[in-house]
Amino acid sequence: MVCMKNKKPLLLISNDDGVNAKGISELVKTLRNLGEIIVMAPDGPRSGASGAITSECPIRYSKVKEEEGLIVYKCTGTPVDCIKLALHELAPRCPDVVIGGINHGDNSAVNVHYSGTMGVVIEGCLKGIPSIGFSLCDHESDADFSAMLPYVKRITEEVLEHGLPKGVCLNVNAPKGETLNGLRICRQTKGVWTNEWKRNVHPRGGAYFWLTGNFVNVEPEMEDTDQWALSHGYLAVTPTQIDLTAYEMMNELKNWNLNI
Amino acid sequence: MVCMKNKKPLLLISNDDGVNAKGISELVKTLRNLGEIIVMAPDGPRSGASGAITSECPIRYSKVKEEEGLIVYKCTGTPVDCIKLALHELAPRCPDVVIGGINHGDNSAVNVHYSGTMGVVIEGCLKGIPSIGFSLCDHESDADFSAMLPYVKRITEEVLEHGLPKGVCLNVNAPKGETLNGLRICRQTKGVWTNEWKRNVHPRGGAYFWLTGNFVNVEPEMEDTDQWALSHGYLAVTPTQIDLTAYEMMNELKNWNLNI
Repeated sequence: MVCMKNKKPLLLISNDDGVNAKGISELVKTLRNLGEIIVMAPDGPRSGASGAITSECPIRYSKVKEEEGLIVYKCTGTPVDCIKLALHELAPRCPDVVIGGINHGDNSAVNVHYSGTMGVVIEGCLKGIPSIGFSLCDHESDADFSAMLPYVKRITEEVLEHGLPKGVCLNVNAPKGETLNGLRICRQTKGVWTNEWKRNVHPRGGAYFWLTGNFVNVEPEMEDTDQWALSHGYLAVTPTQIDLTAYEMMNELKNWNLNI
Repeated sequence: MVCMKNKKPLLLISNDDGVNAKGISELVKTLRNLGEIIVMAPDGPRSGASGAITSECPIRYSKVKEEEGLIVYKCTGTPVDCIKLALHELAPRCPDVVIGGINHGDNSAVNVHYSGTMGVVIEGCLKGIPSIGFSLCDHESDADFSAMLPYVKRITEEVLEHGLPKGVCLNVNAPKGETLNGLRICRQTKGVWTNEWKRNVHPRGGAYFWLTGNFVNVEPEMEDTDQWALSHGYLAVTPTQIDLTAYEMMNELKNWNLNI
């Protein structure tokens, strides 16, 4: 795989809702005329897969369809596996952009840590490729993506034109609804998930638990946060980085009594 | 669950190698006299689980053993599920510390994004609890953890004494070997995984792929990185944050032509 600028951009697309989800189909239709597209997406839902990789079993992939400027593959692995395997096996050259989505569900705030869509995006970013995640705050399988699609195209065009700094990717979330009030550049909202489990009992006995929960935004009035933007009808663009170092803590730790 | 300071610290422990791994057993033995310990660990290996959560199927847990000051549970979910479910179901009060490990394998540099051990730690941090991940750069199931154990105890004691700032956790990695040259406070090393797939063919035909690869450190001479510390025989302590916002990029994006 050679990393070079090509006249026709190459777009590598994946998601965590699976190759048959409406969101990835809408994404491909929206970006179709921007360049050549390779889709490598999970063969079924992988919501909440985060940055998971598959180490305990082997991975397979197969072609779903091929049209002019578009090839679609499905893969037995995680969203991150999809990007890793596509870059290794399928991409004729380094993609100009890696895109995750459009996710059925909100990936703003702390959800970035659980999101398989953002797993795709962070993996692209780790590989040095400009990467964008698109999500709609609607879990329904027939969600209406139409209000955000012009922004999806515009943001992708701008990233293809400007690139992104090394180590930085974009997490783009849209509120549910027929119209948008515009777009805001945001930071990740602080908050916490509560009441996360629904307990049930099996007919033959024994408790089991479904993951659910309520997100509590601890800074709902802060206008620079992605959740504020979403709750006020704006598309939220949150620049996201792969360096997790808490630099300010490094000096403080040097004063601790850690040496033996 | 009431969050209060109790005279006897409560330690919540999980991992991604599973409840039967040597690493978590060594961790529990080392920290046994620091307080009450609850272990809630996956019922088998979950290496590379990152921050994955289980949304498509229900989760179960069961008690493995109970001794004075120690209760061990196993869980069918991911490492993050373990922490979420333990906090919801098992913890009599808010734990004073959440600990992941000791992982069999290196979680320094970009590996933090794939690590189930760090998934545990980031989840604890998201819940507002001081959290630490411990890892040894040795994948073997009978790895020798003895050189790092005094540091594991010391670091845990210091975190119990000082706490950690909201949104900051610790990623602690130890090099393989019988002795350590000391401890260094580090930042996350920049680098990239290459040659990530080993292709094989099934006896009945059809290719399958095992995830493998080589990590290329792109800044091997930088003495403030965690990989430098590890390659020079030091324990690496990398303070890690859950806010992924790329703040410097926010202003630049405001100059892009993103509005429609």
